[in-house]
Amino acid sequence: MTIKVAVAGATGYAGGEILRLLLSHPKYLSGELEIGALTGHSNAGQRVSELMGHLPQLADRLIEDTTVEVLSGHDVVFLGLPHGHSAEIGQQLSEETLVIDCAADFRLTDSAAWEKYYGGDYAGFWPYGIPEMPGHREEIAGARRIAVPGCFPTGSTLALLPAVAGGLIVPDISITAITGVSGAGKKGSVALLGAETMGSLKAYNTAGKHRHTPEMAQNLSKYTDADVNVSFTPVLAPLPRGILTTAIAPLVDGVTQDIATKTYRAFYENEPFVHLLPEGQQPQTQHIVGSNMCHVQVEVDEQSGKLLLTSALDNLTKGTGGAAVQCMNIALDYPETDGLPLAAVAP
Amino acid sequence: MTIKVAVAGATGYAGGEILRLLLSHPKYLSGELEIGALTGHSNAGQRVSELMGHLPQLADRLIEDTTVEVLSGHDVVFLGLPHGHSAEIGQQLSEETLVIDCAADFRLTDSAAWEKYYGGDYAGFWPYGIPEMPGHREEIAGARRIAVPGCFPTGSTLALLPAVAGGLIVPDISITAITGVSGAGKKGSVALLGAETMGSLKAYNTAGKHRHTPEMAQNLSKYTDADVNVSFTPVLAPLPRGILTTAIAPLVDGVTQDIATKTYRAFYENEPFVHLLPEGQQPQTQHIVGSNMCHVQVEVDEQSGKLLLTSALDNLTKGTGGAAVQCMNIALDYPETDGLPLAAVAP
Amino acid sequence: MTIKVAVAGATGYAGGEILRLLLSHPKYLSGELEIGALTGHSNAGQRVSELMGHLPQLADRLIEDTTVEVLSGHDVVFLGLPHGHSAEIGQQLSEETLVIDCAADFRLTDSAAWEKYYGGDYAGFWPYGIPEMPGHREEIAGARRIAVPGCFPTGSTLALLPAVAGGLIVPDISITAITGVSGAGKKGSVALLGAETMGSLKAYNTAGKHRHTPEMAQNLSKYTDADVNVSFTPVLAPLPRGILTTAIAPLVDGVTQDIATKTYRAFYENEPFVHLLPEGQQPQTQHIVGSNMCHVQVEVDEQSGKLLLTSALDNLTKGTGGAAVQCMNIALDYPETDGLPLAAVAP
Amino acid sequence: MTIKVAVAGATGYAGGEILRLLLSHPKYLSGELEIGALTGHSNAGQRVSELMGHLPQLADRLIEDTTVEVLSGHDVVFLGLPHGHSAEIGQQLSEETLVIDCAADFRLTDSAAWEKYYGGDYAGFWPYGIPEMPGHREEIAGARRIAVPGCFPTGSTLALLPAVAGGLIVPDISITAITGVSGAGKKGSVALLGAETMGSLKAYNTAGKHRHTPEMAQNLSKYTDADVNVSFTPVLAPLPRGILTTAIAPLVDGVTQDIATKTYRAFYENEPFVHLLPEGQQPQTQHIVGSNMCHVQVEVDEQSGKLLLTSALDNLTKGTGGAAVQCMNIALDYPETDGLPLAAVAP
Repeated sequence: MTIKVAVAGATGYAGGEILRLLLSHPKYLSGELEIGALTGHSNAGQRVSELMGHLPQLADRLIEDTTVEVLSGHDVVFLGLPHGHSAEIGQQLSEETLVIDCAADFRLTDSAAWEKYYGGDYAGFWPYGIPEMPGHREEIAGARRIAVPGCFPTGSTLALLPAVAGGLIVPDISITAITGVSGAGKKGSVALLGAETMGSLKAYNTAGKHRHTPEMAQNLSKYTDADVNVSFTPVLAPLPRGILTTAIAPLVDGVTQDIATKTYRAFYENEPFVHLLPEGQQPQTQHIVGSNMCHVQVEVDEQSGKLLLTSALDNLTKGTGGAAVQCMNIALDYPETDGLPLAAVAP
Repeated sequence: MTIKVAVAGATGYAGGEILRLLLSHPKYLSGELEIGALTGHSNAGQRVSELMGHLPQLADRLIEDTTVEVLSGHDVVFLGLPHGHSAEIGQQLSEETLVIDCAADFRLTDSAAWEKYYGGDYAGFWPYGIPEMPGHREEIAGARRIAVPGCFPTGSTLALLPAVAGGLIVPDISITAITGVSGAGKKGSVALLGAETMGSLKAYNTAGKHRHTPEMAQNLSKYTDADVNVSFTPVLAPLPRGILTTAIAPLVDGVTQDIATKTYRAFYENEPFVHLLPEGQQPQTQHIVGSNMCHVQVEVDEQSGKLLLTSALDNLTKGTGGAAVQCMNIALDYPETDGLPLAAVAP
Repeated sequence: MTIKVAVAGATGYAGGEILRLLLSHPKYLSGELEIGALTGHSNAGQRVSELMGHLPQLADRLIEDTTVEVLSGHDVVFLGLPHGHSAEIGQQLSEETLVIDCAADFRLTDSAAWEKYYGGDYAGFWPYGIPEMPGHREEIAGARRIAVPGCFPTGSTLALLPAVAGGLIVPDISITAITGVSGAGKKGSVALLGAETMGSLKAYNTAGKHRHTPEMAQNLSKYTDADVNVSFTPVLAPLPRGILTTAIAPLVDGVTQDIATKTYRAFYENEPFVHLLPEGQQPQTQHIVGSNMCHVQVEVDEQSGKLLLTSALDNLTKGTGGAAVQCMNIALDYPETDGLPLAAVAP
Repeated sequence: MTIKVAVAGATGYAGGEILRLLLSHPKYLSGELEIGALTGHSNAGQRVSELMGHLPQLADRLIEDTTVEVLSGHDVVFLGLPHGHSAEIGQQLSEETLVIDCAADFRLTDSAAWEKYYGGDYAGFWPYGIPEMPGHREEIAGARRIAVPGCFPTGSTLALLPAVAGGLIVPDISITAITGVSGAGKKGSVALLGAETMGSLKAYNTAGKHRHTPEMAQNLSKYTDADVNVSFTPVLAPLPRGILTTAIAPLVDGVTQDIATKTYRAFYENEPFVHLLPEGQQPQTQHIVGSNMCHVQVEVDEQSGKLLLTSALDNLTKGTGGAAVQCMNIALDYPETDGLPLAAVAP
């Protein structure tokens, strides 16, 4: 039986990344998985060659309009749409379709947080696509609806989870996460021009204003009884892809480097997409570009009494499109690493 | 039977790219192909994790010294060494070993050109690894020794070959090729520091001084009786990977855009790694990063009476490491596209 | 007497650069020159701090609407407007006002070229702002209307003029000029996003389509009786500022490196903003960022029988805003180098 | 009387920046200040044109060896040397010479911190070159020896000082500061190659290991009785120049945004080189490149109970070379802003 896959919002960065990964997926190469409808909004009627020159295999394919009709008849539908529109489409698709949503609509369990950060009606909550969170892989395996997490929450959660769950820190956490410019999406905007972003660094949506803040707290709170307090500072930096997360929190008394290292090793020992770095090395975004990996380091700062957690991932791969394909693999009972590079395109 | 592969000079950029590609190669994933010795010079004794953080699968592997003994016993040996050293090692390996050399030693048919541009003893000539050159795929298929071309000659040859062979131009050619910084290799040098190369453009080895000049003329001359004259200007630009080649030559009378387009389409119609762009589009290096593709455009400039040929490729993939793996696939009778991405990591 | 200066289109990149330079101009620092109205279109009513954070001295200034009324009453008006709009405004300003236009409206002497490349009514021709072209400094000195040249024509003209005027080459010229992204202006566009331009190179408006092509031919033709044929290939590269021009043309018989070098030295010996590099060095855009310099090299390629001319300038300084201020200095009889840096911001 | 200035270590990035600024300094342009000896170590005997192509005015000047003899006879000596060497030279120069040291030797008041972070003999303490620290401008005015601060401590101190001195925060501070690559200096190193740094982000010298950590604590401790605890995470980002500092600390009860803003406005109201941004804007490194400004923002994060302080400066200007010239201006009783741009080279 052939699995037919549609990508809604195919011409955005998340959609393009899902397509890049599917085109090298062993099930696609063997013909078991087929790429069906590619949809867009303003781009409907154009060819892929005009919009995504990096996908020559699909060059002649037409972008169709994003409608429930076009998307019906597929076994898997990836949604790479703006939130709101995503919920609207997602809720109308057949229950048998595997729907994997890259927007924010179904990420938050707390309707008040939704209203505060996104506004409008709360759509509900779907199984949450970080398989590395204890219990989540099992939920995803049985799900027909999956919410792909935000790119910042994935980097922060993977960096912090063993420390929070393992009681290494008081969860009063300061996070500064530095992102490449593709995180802001593919829409014309003066502030995101090459001339404005090359050679520049700036913080934005600071002091609790970034929409990913409640998602981080939600993920970490699930594994501790303590109150999780997150101060989040996102920074835009001049690179196309990649997020480097630095997180700092007070050490619990008695926690040594050895304890911290062992806690992290135990937590991630069977995870194919989390790579704990050897002592003395720090994650570097160059080492994860185009791969589905998250590189993580944990370091005790005795002088200041803090634990420093750092991680690097590709916002479009492990941060969005790769996570979406990873969830598809789990939900379709494919090998989890199928089509997901472990090695990065470096330098 | 398992094929055992060694990479000499594994820690350089060419070596690292070959490893990245092999790690996703279907024959590696299925166990038919095995990664054996990884060798280096100054790095011998270090672990891969310290030198190539983007290859987590090999993190714990040790770099061995580059010697004939270490490389013996492998079915395939990739050489990513400086020229001279490469010839010395390559000539000592068993004749049954498939040796694929990424250095310049065996690229030139003319010993005088070798002496002028490289100096020292001329080592000879091996089957030349651009399978898209008519006749070359067959030579490579039967070869146990293959010379991988330089990155600039590959971009120029693929851009110009149909025009030269098809008699579209008088082969008095001006080439300006703009390269990313990985082309200069992985050695500490003030001129190649990030602070010196970011935000800067400069031409170098101009006016016939670049060593790739005779290789370009050699490739094109093979398919025309006319004298091929090449003026080559390489430019260093602030990006990690990618070469954009622009080549200009006088149009032969009567050549129209339609004739030019048809000549190119016919020439490349069965080539998996050459993508002719639709009219009105120009190659863009972003669209080939990490892929083994070369994107090509041909355009008649009626006003100036010139033909403009442009191409984009990744200097480390189609320009070096991908070409090396493509040649291995052909020589081992694997499907030619195995392990070689057609889609690029963009943006 | 205080000279009052207005900048129309102040919030674009040309306008911003003119302001940056004026703010360090000795006549501004001494109070002889005053910055009056700053105008914009969509930005009218906003403060400079919201639009040009790099000009803290003007942070609280309001952007006014671009009208003849607002601009009247100034001694000098810089126009940094789209062509068409620029002509419309420029033609209504008082004849006593020194009007320095950074748009294309008054650059071309040939109305047919205007119609072909820009379309619409031809507005005429003003004294042309490359003071280094023989005869132009004198014209500018007496003018109340000055057309600032395009950034590409300035780089090409300064690279080629001594060779054309001195008869070193047959003027059948192939120009490849590589530009930073600020050259495309400050308007939201997907193709100019940081995510699309970082790490990428692409040619555009190739094969005679770029609007600066006739301007180059016009400048060079003025100093030779031979027919000037220009093939122009512009390339977009990932840096904010800077243009590197490479130009290639057939050598006239008997021209040696020594003759070429001496011709260039003689031509530019009194020019404060043209710096001929010592033999063996190539222009590098890093060395001209933020300065009003054009660095030039001339090199005989004996093997191919060509002359290679290269130049580097900052498209926003010597390529636009610096040239505008240089012309103002000449027209107001200030020292020509006032307020115009010779040293660049490097690295 | 002409003031004669020497720059030791002239070919490094700090030295080059000091020269760039001096060449536009009004006292240099008027002839009151003269550029004397330029010294280097490995570069002695070379011309400026080979080493610093961005300073065409000095192209033909020779680099001399760095010795006390060569430096003697100057009124002002800037030292841009490695620490240790700097102390050795600095201590031998005449007491009447104004010596402005860009190295670390004389920055720390605590010999134990010196030994821990730098090792070797403690050289002592000189007046510390952040004139914006209360009391320092006066000290600098009368000094003949000045220690220019580290680039990270300047960004952190200017961001945090009003909050610490004004009692807005509990000084348990987490600092993440992101720097451009010129901060690492001009020495060949594989880790600093363009190919390794473009498109990449990484933290380094984390968890208290960076040498600038004690300097930050020292500066802040001077203005509070509370114990200052600093956790410092430096990050390397792909831009040539600029540091963005983000600092987070617990708010003292009752501190509102209004109080915080007023405290900062009062603290910096007369400072020419500190620019407090309007509410809602964040510092951006593009807005300070090449200028001597530090842009600062203060923001109350009520949700997490933290104060967020951010600053942007150019590591080579306000972070080193500009601070050095600012100190010279004060010590020589020149107007403090002479030769120091307030406007940046943007985009």
